[in-house]
Amino acid sequence: MKIKVTVMPKPGVLDPQGRAIQQALGSLGFAGVQEVRAGKVLLLDLAETDPAAARATAEAMARQLLANTVIESFSVELV
Amino acid sequence: MKIKVTVMPKPGVLDPQGRAIQQALGSLGFAGVQEVRAGKVLLLDLAETDPAAARATAEAMARQLLANTVIESFSVELV
Repeated sequence: MKIKVTVMPKPGVLDPQGRAIQQALGSLGFAGVQEVRAGKVLLLDLAETDPAAARATAEAMARQLLANTVIESFSVELV
Repeated sequence: MKIKVTVMPKPGVLDPQGRAIQQALGSLGFAGVQEVRAGKVLLLDLAETDPAAARATAEAMARQLLANTVIESFSVELV
């Protein structure tokens, strides 16, 4: 069962990577880039076949390892 | 206009970050993790208001800066 975990910096948290990308896009001539937020996406292939169990497992993985929940939020999606 | 650009390693390309996460999940006691692929997600806020133009701009950004198209594929999605 494939699961996508998306991890983003929480609103209000400084995002230096997104800021650097925004400035680089400006340097390349792309005008009108008002904000860039940079996150991670993790595509997990789990042996688990029950959708609810797979989602619960992915959420536990996100809380324990994939996301730093102090500064990042995550979402889990079956794909 | 908000646009999400997702960048993933192409199939067959070695993904050391995904591999490291897979092993770390195993160490934490999560069994049955068959594969992990690690990518980036970039949430762009563009001044452009026309959806087609915003999408075209985001694709140009991805090709020029956000993705290394030799080893990564990208997708663009209006959000």
